[in-house]
Amino acid sequence: MSDVSLSLQDAHDLVFKALVANRTSAENARFVADALVAADASGQPGHGLSRVSGYAAQSRSGKVDGYAVPEIEKAAPGVLRVNANYGFAYPAISVALEKLPDMARSQGIAMVAIRHSHHFGQGGAHCEALAEAGLVSFVFGNAPAAIAPWGGKTALFGTNPIAFAAPVPGQPPLVIDLAVSTVAKGKIMTAEKTGKAIPEGWAFDAEGNPTTNASAAMKGTMVPIGGAKGAALAMMIDVLGGALVGAALGHQSTSLFSGEGAAPDLGQVIIAIDPNLSSFGAFGDKMTTMVEAVEGVEGARMPGSRRIGLREAAARDGILIPEQIYREVLALSGQQQGAA
Amino acid sequence: MSDVSLSLQDAHDLVFKALVANRTSAENARFVADALVAADASGQPGHGLSRVSGYAAQSRSGKVDGYAVPEIEKAAPGVLRVNANYGFAYPAISVALEKLPDMARSQGIAMVAIRHSHHFGQGGAHCEALAEAGLVSFVFGNAPAAIAPWGGKTALFGTNPIAFAAPVPGQPPLVIDLAVSTVAKGKIMTAEKTGKAIPEGWAFDAEGNPTTNASAAMKGTMVPIGGAKGAALAMMIDVLGGALVGAALGHQSTSLFSGEGAAPDLGQVIIAIDPNLSSFGAFGDKMTTMVEAVEGVEGARMPGSRRIGLREAAARDGILIPEQIYREVLALSGQQQGAA
Repeated sequence: MSDVSLSLQDAHDLVFKALVANRTSAENARFVADALVAADASGQPGHGLSRVSGYAAQSRSGKVDGYAVPEIEKAAPGVLRVNANYGFAYPAISVALEKLPDMARSQGIAMVAIRHSHHFGQGGAHCEALAEAGLVSFVFGNAPAAIAPWGGKTALFGTNPIAFAAPVPGQPPLVIDLAVSTVAKGKIMTAEKTGKAIPEGWAFDAEGNPTTNASAAMKGTMVPIGGAKGAALAMMIDVLGGALVGAALGHQSTSLFSGEGAAPDLGQVIIAIDPNLSSFGAFGDKMTTMVEAVEGVEGARMPGSRRIGLREAAARDGILIPEQIYREVLALSGQQQGAA
Repeated sequence: MSDVSLSLQDAHDLVFKALVANRTSAENARFVADALVAADASGQPGHGLSRVSGYAAQSRSGKVDGYAVPEIEKAAPGVLRVNANYGFAYPAISVALEKLPDMARSQGIAMVAIRHSHHFGQGGAHCEALAEAGLVSFVFGNAPAAIAPWGGKTALFGTNPIAFAAPVPGQPPLVIDLAVSTVAKGKIMTAEKTGKAIPEGWAFDAEGNPTTNASAAMKGTMVPIGGAKGAALAMMIDVLGGALVGAALGHQSTSLFSGEGAAPDLGQVIIAIDPNLSSFGAFGDKMTTMVEAVEGVEGARMPGSRRIGLREAAARDGILIPEQIYREVLALSGQQQGAA
């Protein structure tokens, strides 16, 4: 099957309609559509329109509450708690991104703890928004179990990402966003669907042995970066996204693709720091120096820099969506093909 | 050469004397000795007595100011700045660990930004102290350049560690402490000294090619965990330990072993969070559940748990120090062998 080209507006309309047709409020559908279209436009299709059918299955069954309204409460001068109320993560993250800048500027450092939440997509995009506001930030969120504690065969921790961004004077922010598994699980899912082998070093089978068989890998666990180190980082992020906010731990959570089962109840932590306070104004020049140093190294490029060209191209030319995904989203939106 | 067995007290006395004999105040020497002996006792000899000769060379030449007194200033309700004044890191970190708990409990989250600092040793030990006070914490610190930005051949970033700890009710804290390089650079230095080959995957040569030759590796760069991912994490930590606090960046810093050159001027960021505020009291039970889950996985163990048995053994039996290092420290202390 070929790809379908959609303008960003058409893609947004399509996702919005698919969610509204599947027990989701217009306001929430807008936040979700914003995030998914931005992911496809940034070259992160695993967090893009490929998610709509899973999201809609969950809102249809009530596993995610499409009508949830996030509730906020101040836990301390530097900490806001957001209860996502078992809805989508994006409306809750939007509240966090709205409140954090003022808190970080007055406190120097501030945090939002989001609980009873869901899949949070591109962590880097959330950090990037804070960097645009002049802040250094982290987003940590947990995910359903896919990585075993090192030495074991049973997955307890998600392929939990670390996302970080920092402003750079006169330039796009530095954005770092990486899962602590060697590759995204989506790559193994795709290999399984197409019957292809996977490279060594991506996954272990159910017995804990390295495997190149995608089906065996799906029954096993993901290989963390740096072996024991990545497994420890996955655990660290489960402490943050799970225990620290009072959400489910990775091994207690449920699929983000299927409509069946209890709510995933994931959590996210967003930390924002005002770098001008902590550095007494030295930060900007230091970042300029760092970026110049990286750009002066032959063959090197800034992490996350690929997104900028991709987004410009997407704004101009639209995004390419695999036809099967397009048809799924279109069907969920209740439209006929060609009517989008 | 064989190893020399020293009680913790004798090891402490020896380090203390070696530093005081090399232009360091008694107060600072005590903080340094505490940290180095604790590292050897915790199975981290790379941050233990092996550092004394480099430290003493630097205090002797004035590259590190052994008489420095850290200065603190409040940058914001949640942020304290500590100027280590080009002295050792440990006295500055001690100030941070003293001030952070109250700040974190009142603000929910708080940070100390340490600049004009030096080698900070076992990051996990500093986090562990905060976990003993009931806090979740990170320590990030930068180090002299050893890792290239991904795709390049020139080192810009240190093998910068991520350290994290979280309290666990009724048990020792969870402590995670890992450099973002595949192995510590000390392992390559040791291989070079002994003329041994190193395994593939540890280092690149000066041309950016994988190498098993330790001398070629010392002229090249360290392999980051997860390739581009670890290189991005190394950069993230340079933003935190360097730019965010107003210290030197990794590529601007200088050797932590030689007495020559300008001050390393490294930086550290310590972030502490009160988990009871952010989770409304749910944190402890969640951590208990997580630890039980890890312990229930055959073959798995808690990250950092090895330190506990090692410390008990060290308290009982003392620590083993390679004879060459023992002789160096003894000579620096101005004592004859056998007099320690």
